[in-house]
Amino acid sequence: MPREITAYSNPLIKWVRDLRDKRHRKQARQFLAEGLRILTEAKETGRLPTLLFFAKPSADHPLVRQLVRAVELAGGEAIETTPDILSKLSGKDNPQAVVGVFEELGTTLDMLDRSSSGIWLVAERLRDPGNLGTILRTGDAVGAGGLILVGECVDPFSVEAVRASMGALFTVPIVKTEWQPFLDWLRQGPGQLVGLSLDTETDYRSAHYAAPTFLLTGNEAQGMPADYAAACDVLVKIPMLGKADSLNAAVATAVMAYEVLAQQGRGKTA
Amino acid sequence: MPREITAYSNPLIKWVRDLRDKRHRKQARQFLAEGLRILTEAKETGRLPTLLFFAKPSADHPLVRQLVRAVELAGGEAIETTPDILSKLSGKDNPQAVVGVFEELGTTLDMLDRSSSGIWLVAERLRDPGNLGTILRTGDAVGAGGLILVGECVDPFSVEAVRASMGALFTVPIVKTEWQPFLDWLRQGPGQLVGLSLDTETDYRSAHYAAPTFLLTGNEAQGMPADYAAACDVLVKIPMLGKADSLNAAVATAVMAYEVLAQQGRGKTA
Repeated sequence: MPREITAYSNPLIKWVRDLRDKRHRKQARQFLAEGLRILTEAKETGRLPTLLFFAKPSADHPLVRQLVRAVELAGGEAIETTPDILSKLSGKDNPQAVVGVFEELGTTLDMLDRSSSGIWLVAERLRDPGNLGTILRTGDAVGAGGLILVGECVDPFSVEAVRASMGALFTVPIVKTEWQPFLDWLRQGPGQLVGLSLDTETDYRSAHYAAPTFLLTGNEAQGMPADYAAACDVLVKIPMLGKADSLNAAVATAVMAYEVLAQQGRGKTA
Repeated sequence: MPREITAYSNPLIKWVRDLRDKRHRKQARQFLAEGLRILTEAKETGRLPTLLFFAKPSADHPLVRQLVRAVELAGGEAIETTPDILSKLSGKDNPQAVVGVFEELGTTLDMLDRSSSGIWLVAERLRDPGNLGTILRTGDAVGAGGLILVGECVDPFSVEAVRASMGALFTVPIVKTEWQPFLDWLRQGPGQLVGLSLDTETDYRSAHYAAPTFLLTGNEAQGMPADYAAACDVLVKIPMLGKADSLNAAVATAVMAYEVLAQQGRGKTA
């Protein structure tokens, strides 16, 4: 039976609202996700929030009732609150029907099985939460084994990244690491590292992408450092005919990933 | 010789700041773009702001001086102001070195030469300014003839869309129109309309994209209406292996556009 919280001054509400702040999120190792569609998708992949907030007007929605039941069965807590508080938790004027608090999984490189997919996404110093979420969504679509974040990347558990991922945050494993540990891990097994670069003559369509391929995307403004590029097995470029000098990082990653998918033959009949 | 404005209460400053508001922008038919890189790129394509704002600390930057000279030669006005006012004009704590006010071009369908490119991008009811800007950037990269916006799309001249376009706003012609006028214009000449859809078995890699190809992307949440899909010469789908049910709209457009580019043979040697 869900308890009810209607006071904005309630300490739990304050604690949850603070999860919008990166520092607080890092300490708590929990993050916010919102919306019936995304939380239901999370449930289907076996991920349930530890805390689930919903507002009275949505209490009888069948998907909300299913979520409440599942959360309570799993030992989490469902909390009925007001639309106003829900709106403050989500930071939006038109709040979603539900807001959930999830535990970070803390996946590490050692937990990845590189034979589980032919495509892996690697991003270094990615700065934009929208790009990160969009890359996760692409990762889900191409069946990527995971997204490996190298160096100082934007927090994948920020509200903006979670939103842009449209639920892919729950389906694509995420590892946060640094360059050297990543490279050490990579070289312990099969896998080619493919870097996206402006300084190569190799067209991305002419390279061969054996499984598993690790696609490395550099920082939005600067691309990748020279020593990262030197460590790649192959550097490829996407042709650009225009006057601007680069594609959006999430777009470039997707164009590459779909070429790998097509070459590996899994995209043909899907 | 640039005049100087240091008072935030100056009516011109207020007028420019109001260009961040859609209604005001529509009346004025002018919009804001900021940043040395973007304004310099605009200059190189022959587009200069009618008003150029810069702050004293940047006044001696060679690119700023070039912009000031070009604007004044073209009959526009360069205005020196304070970093604080610049910050308020741009809506950012760390303002760019320059903010420019540009006139909307008001390109119409009749002004387009469909033989000028093999790829044209068409988006209907696109809602996210980041997606719109990113699609423009992709359009620049693939050498698209233009972006045709059908129906109630987000304003391409909003500050967010201009920012996300990274200058491509100045290199890719933009037409705002409605579905029927677009279709009437399209059928007056050669060109196949290719729709991205979830309801087809045709893989995007197996279709043939003759020049000029018009790529139609539907609304982010709903896709395109059934009668739009029915009017397409071919519907194609991008394979999705994951649990989420769609790609980001700008990503899907880019994956399609690069397939068209590769087929039309212009991407091979670039």
